[in-house]
Formats: sequence, structure tokens, C-alpha cells
Amino acid sequence: MKHFFIAVILLIAFSSFNSLKSVKNSEPTVNKADSIVVRQLFNSALSNGKSYQWLDHLSNNIGGRLSGSPQAQQAVEWGEKLMKDLGFDKVWLQPVMVPHWVRGEKEVAYFTIGKIKYDVAICALGGSVPTPKKGVSGEVVEVNSLAEAEALGEKLRGKIVFFNRPFEDTLIETFKSYGGCVDQRGGGAKVTGKFGVLGVIVRSMTHSIDNFPHTGAMGYGDIPDNEKVPAAAISTIAANLLSEKLKENPNLKFYFKQSCETLPDAPSFNVIGEMTGSEFPDTYITVGGHLDSWDLGDGAHDDGTGIVQSIEVLRLFQLNGIKPKHTIRAVLFMNEENGLRGGRKYAEEAKKNNENHIAALESDSGGFTPRGFSIDANGKNLALIKSWKSLLAPYGLHDINEGYGGADIDPLKAETTTLISYKPDSQRYFDYHHAANDTFDKVNKRELELGAASMAALVYLLDNYLQ
Amino acid sequence: MKHFFIAVILLIAFSSFNSLKSVKNSEPTVNKADSIVVRQLFNSALSNGKSYQWLDHLSNNIGGRLSGSPQAQQAVEWGEKLMKDLGFDKVWLQPVMVPHWVRGEKEVAYFTIGKIKYDVAICALGGSVPTPKKGVSGEVVEVNSLAEAEALGEKLRGKIVFFNRPFEDTLIETFKSYGGCVDQRGGGAKVTGKFGVLGVIVRSMTHSIDNFPHTGAMGYGDIPDNEKVPAAAISTIAANLLSEKLKENPNLKFYFKQSCETLPDAPSFNVIGEMTGSEFPDTYITVGGHLDSWDLGDGAHDDGTGIVQSIEVLRLFQLNGIKPKHTIRAVLFMNEENGLRGGRKYAEEAKKNNENHIAALESDSGGFTPRGFSIDANGKNLALIKSWKSLLAPYGLHDINEGYGGADIDPLKAETTTLISYKPDSQRYFDYHHAANDTFDKVNKRELELGAASMAALVYLLDNYLQ
Repeated sequence: MKHFFIAVILLIAFSSFNSLKSVKNSEPTVNKADSIVVRQLFNSALSNGKSYQWLDHLSNNIGGRLSGSPQAQQAVEWGEKLMKDLGFDKVWLQPVMVPHWVRGEKEVAYFTIGKIKYDVAICALGGSVPTPKKGVSGEVVEVNSLAEAEALGEKLRGKIVFFNRPFEDTLIETFKSYGGCVDQRGGGAKVTGKFGVLGVIVRSMTHSIDNFPHTGAMGYGDIPDNEKVPAAAISTIAANLLSEKLKENPNLKFYFKQSCETLPDAPSFNVIGEMTGSEFPDTYITVGGHLDSWDLGDGAHDDGTGIVQSIEVLRLFQLNGIKPKHTIRAVLFMNEENGLRGGRKYAEEAKKNNENHIAALESDSGGFTPRGFSIDANGKNLALIKSWKSLLAPYGLHDINEGYGGADIDPLKAETTTLISYKPDSQRYFDYHHAANDTFDKVNKRELELGAASMAALVYLLDNYLQ
Repeated sequence: MKHFFIAVILLIAFSSFNSLKSVKNSEPTVNKADSIVVRQLFNSALSNGKSYQWLDHLSNNIGGRLSGSPQAQQAVEWGEKLMKDLGFDKVWLQPVMVPHWVRGEKEVAYFTIGKIKYDVAICALGGSVPTPKKGVSGEVVEVNSLAEAEALGEKLRGKIVFFNRPFEDTLIETFKSYGGCVDQRGGGAKVTGKFGVLGVIVRSMTHSIDNFPHTGAMGYGDIPDNEKVPAAAISTIAANLLSEKLKENPNLKFYFKQSCETLPDAPSFNVIGEMTGSEFPDTYITVGGHLDSWDLGDGAHDDGTGIVQSIEVLRLFQLNGIKPKHTIRAVLFMNEENGLRGGRKYAEEAKKNNENHIAALESDSGGFTPRGFSIDANGKNLALIKSWKSLLAPYGLHDINEGYGGADIDPLKAETTTLISYKPDSQRYFDYHHAANDTFDKVNKRELELGAASMAALVYLLDNYLQ
């Protein structure tokens, strides 16, 4: 391995003149030596990767790890110990207070038409208030948007509002379908509470027609406590059935019961591990995902994969003897799902400490086969990263374009110039997202490893070429 | 829908001058109207697709359909009826005699070290002879290649030869890993039979470390009957364990028993449905997959997906009112897995009838998310198809390059200029390939539908632009 890297270093040295020349000419900056390093990073990840066995532990031995839960604390301790055992130059916990919402007993829901009872697969949305102990029961008004609910206004009083706008199937990227629907989950209760509704039920955020309810964050904004009504998600099969039955039985009765509650904020941590830069130790590139997850599954794809890939990036550097010029940090953010406190805290601390972050990479779109990167950067850096396309395309990374960086790194925007999201294939993501079937067995080992290698390759290039 | 297509036809008419001009200038031939049609094909497949429900029936109601089996006959009847029900212009069966190999009783294998017995997950390879009724038992010689076995020669006498060269993990495309190993399965028995071995066991052809044995075709070539020894695949977990134990216990005893046999050739059929061309009815473009499968799973990915996608291509044309200029045929080939008789028969008949085939598209790499097309064509046609890249890239089709066309269409090579293979993502394919876990639940609806739309878009462009 050592000889290989001496060869690479020589190649880099010999090719640096060409490389510098091409920067001036605005031509691709990468060279043959880079392509050898990138190939080696992929080789290591695929033949000697650790991400899959780490994910097995995080998913199966720790499991779902909602902020404030004992499992979230176990995940913090696991992440810290793992990075210390790997011998990263510095590993520490960054304290952050997080919301502490608990689901309580398993929710119950059904609707009745006369004496016929239809069971409904349901789960409380994160942040929701509970129903009264005996549940709520009422007629249902089906709507397709927040605006439609607002327009109905007082007609909603005493009813259960059912938000049922489905994912748009014809969009190729499923994140766009999600973006087009998720306002119902996030804001349904907030906009209808003032009309004295009994509660809100929302069609699960997925393309898949199955019986898994998908949880996720909702919020009440600053509405008064007495307007806060319980909100829940129902499975797409239940939503389709309810919608169908409502057409002929508009007065059917829907019942649901949930006992979730919000406890006082709890202490938790971001977990940070770093390889100190050889030339610019006070300048940072971060790579991260979020350590918390929802509680229904084991959080394998959301975002266990991002966590293990981020740690793997640093290990792949170690393994291949790559000494980064800048300090590279793996950041395991806490509380992306229902508060983003970890992402905000990291950015606050970075600002307070005058840390110079030149780039941040996030993996929070599942552990699927690589497609590319989504880049939120100035024109110069965007062009630079796009110029690496020919180097990355052989690994399936074709879609390297301007776009959103990521939730956990977005608060860093003022502190850095370049935010990047790793972009795997999106077709299966919402089959599992926030549901009980987001489990380790849904992750393919090679797809996960290809993602880790893709991220390592990008961090390597950023470290070498980003100004 | 009709108005939409009148608009598209007008657009095509208005843009034909530009299009013709750009052919002469060797610039991209496609135009705005094409991009609208392609978009519409994807919209239809994703919002109103039938391929997933067809595959559900083929996989779950018919199941594994090895050539000559009752299920293969049921699949023939199903395919014929489906295409007739869809109202294709012409649907018929093309008779072909196929090999008829049957597995018999479930195979048994184990090895023993002293009194300790280790069970082994095993399956006979397709085409193998049986063991004697009481099985075979002997010492094992592990080798990593046909050449290594040949070199050992007489030292193999009375032994069981264990071919254990694993997939190369560092190759990005898993088909290359398969191609680098499959000679062991295909030729292991053929090259060692002359040395009087008891039998051959082969490591399963997969990256995945699990307990599924993967079957597949093997052959004896023209060796004498008395040199034909039984051949089987063992799971990768069993292969790793056996290899590990052999290091310390080179004299351990391996036992296996299989009762497979080759019956006389059986009558079967290719199933063909066509939409007659409006301008060139005697010129053909085919789109196909293979209707037979191995018997262990239900053949969902191999190649149920190719079958339903091929039929869906024609249905998407119908649904969108596209009248092809050339005759488009969906060809459901019989016997790709253990004989290729269907592919050969189709090419023979095409030649005999002087049919002018201008292109053939095959889908036989699983129903995964689209990546591109692999093209076996002359330089002019290759360049033409590659010029469509910008039109197809928004659908994930970036990898449009020269390569192999496909097993079932390869015999057509003398009769046509352009063979194309649909290329989905390959990472998961060999997790299921020829094994008991190649089942319907492994297919994602959207990935399947995106593949069908990708194929329809390509056939549409071939129909309009290929000379």
C-alpha cells in the first residue's frame, strides 16, 4: 500500500504543473493521479469496507433512535467509541439540548360504516399532542391541500380533517414528489386548529401503496395551546379505502387514539471526529449525516447509512494513507428529524470559534446506488465541481448539478461557500422513509459502499482543489 | 389524449425540416416534439402502468418456468392471451423444441470432519447429470480456475473438485464480475470429467454472502457420456466455510446427492405480438425478454421484468396513440436459460422469411432503476443513438455506450444492424440471479416502470430516426 502511495505522490508532483496551468485556462483541474486515487478509494470501499457491518450494529443492536431516547444516547456513545477506536486525530461530543417527544402506547384507529368496522394503520406525527385518553371520533372531511382546508374554514368544526393529496407519480425524482406533498403533514394541524377540528389525519408520504404509516415532523407554529389538535399519518392503503368509502358514506365515523407527548428538552450531543489537516489545520471540510432517526423502524436508510458512510470516508483516507491538507471532520448530527438542533448548534459553534469551513457534504437520502451530487455553491466552485464529472461518471456519478445542500449543513451556509448533498438513486427511498420498514435488510451492501466511496472521492477532490 | 397527439404530430411536421437538416450536419436529430413524446411515455408508464400487475401474475400465479415445464407452457398461454386481449395487430406462437431438464428431488449436501457434520446449501446446475442414487462422497480439492484444475489433472481422480474463485468486488458493474467467474460454472465439469472426478461443486455466482445456492447452465460439450460428472452450486456461506475448514482438514469428506435428469426435447414456443408499421410494415424493430426462467425462484427479475416491459412498450404506444412507421414486435423468447433455442429459432425464421429487422432491443438485466443502453451497432447507428443522450439523461439514462446487445437477440446479428440491451443498475442483480430469492417482492414498481418507459422511448426514437 505504501509503495502505491509513493507512486501516486510522485504522479501528483509531476502533474502539478499541468494541473495549475489548466486552472488558469478554466479547464478540468483533475489529473491522472487523481483518477488513480479515486479508483483506489472505490477499491478499498468495495473490497475492504466497514460501513455495512457498522450499519448492522447501529440498526440491529441499537435500533430506532429518536432524539432524547435511550437509543439516541447509545448511538452517541457508539459513534464516539467507534471513531476513537479508529484512531481519528480528535473525537469529541458537542452538547446540544434536543426536543424530547415520545410516542407512548401504540396508536389505534378505525372507521365505521353502520356496524362494519375498518381498521386503519396509523401513527402519530412527531410533535403532535395526544388525543384525549378515550380518543376522538367524528366525521371526516377530505381535502387535498392546506388552501382547501383554509377555504372550508368553519365547515371543519367538530370534524376530523383528512389530507389526502397523493405523491405525483410522474416526477422522476421522488424527493420532488415528497416536496410537493409534505406541507400537509407539516402544516395540516397548524392551519386547521383554529377552526375547532377534532384532529388531523394525513396520507402517508410515499409512492408505495402499502399498509405502513409513515411518521415525520409536524408543527403548530405559534398557535395557542387550545388550538393544538392531534395529528397522525395513515397508510396509503387506508387512505385510499377511506377516500373511496367517503364517496358513498360521507357521514362515516373515524376514530383514533394516540398518547404521545412532548417532555422537557433533553441533553444530547453531536458526535465529531476529525483528521487534522497537514497544511491548513484550521480550515475545515465536513462530511456528515444524522445520528437520530424516527422510532418506528431502525433508521437504516434514514440516516444510518449517512452516518456510517461519513465515518467510512475518514477511514478510507486512513487506510489509503491520504493525509488531507485541510482538517476533515465527520459530523454525526443529532436531531435532524424533529428540530435540527444539532445542525444549528454545529453552525453556531463554528461561527463562535471563527472556524473557516470551506465545504460541507451531507448524506441523508438513503444508502442507494450512486447518482451524483447536488451542489449549493457560488458559480466558480459549482463549475469546479462539475468539471470533475468525467472522473466520477465511471462510478455512476453522472448527476452533478446545482441544488440543495442538505438540512443539517444548511445552517452552516453563512460560514462556508460550498454545501453539497450526496445523491443516491431516489426510487425506493420513500417506500421506507419514516416507517417501520426502514430496516437494515433494505440496504444493499454494495450500494452503501459505493456511496461511501463516492463521498470519499469528492472530499478528496475538494481537499485538493477547492480554494 | 387525442388533441395532445395532434399537437405533437403538427410539431413533428413543422420541425422535420430542421431535423433533416441536422442529420446532414451530424448534429442531434431529435427535436422538441420528441422530448414531449418521451415525457408522455414516462408519464403514462408511471401513472398508468400495467407492467407491475402483469409481473405479479407471472411471478406469483405461474412462478418459476423452466423450459419444458408445465409453468413454461402456462406462461406461453398467458403471454399470448395478454397480447391478444390488448388488441395487438397480430399475435402468434412460434414453435420451437427446447431442452427439458428437470431437477427432481431436493438436493442434499454436507461435509464431515470426524463426527461433526456441516450442512451445505446446494442445488444442481442446469443440464447436470444426477449423482448415483445414494449420492457421492469424497475428499475435496479446491481450485480457483479451470486452468488450475486442468493442471492438477490425475491428482483429481476420485475427488470432488470445488471451484471457488469469488466475484471481483472492485468492479463497478456486477455483470463484469459475473463474466469473470461464470466459466467455472459452465465448464468445471467439462474440463475435469476426463480425470475421473466424482463430481464438481461451484461457488454460487454472486457478490452476496448468504445461504442461497444459485443455479444456472452448465455444459459437457462433446465429452463421452462416461466422463459426465454431476455438477452443483453451493451457497457463498457454504463455500467460505468449506474453504476455511479445508485449510486445517484437507481430508474432510463432502457428500452430495441430486436426482436431476435430462428428458427428451419438448415442444414449446416463442410468443410474438406486433403492431404493424404504418409506412414500412415489412421492416421490423423487436423488443423482447425471455419467458422461461430457472425453477428455484419465480423468475421475477430474470426475466419476468423483461417480458412485462416488452409488452408494456407496445401498450404505451397504443395508449398514447403512437402509430409506428415500422412494425414493432414484442418477442417473448423461450429457453434463454438453458439452450437459447428460442432466440436461435426467431433468427432462423427471420432469415427464412427474408424479414428486414432494423433493430432489436432486449431487457434481460433485471427490473432495476434505469442507467442506459448498451449498443452493438455500426459506427453510424451508434453515433445516432448516442446523440439522443441529452433527451434521455433526465430519466436517468446516462450510460449510452457501445457494448453487448443480448443473448436472445445476438443470433439476429446477421439480419439486423443494431442490437441494444436495456441497462438498469446492476448492483442488486446477482443477489437474486438464478436463486430462490428471485421473487416478485424484490422488484420495485417505479424502477420497473421507469425501465419500460426507457425502452418505449428508445423504440420510439429508433422507429423515427434509424435508417
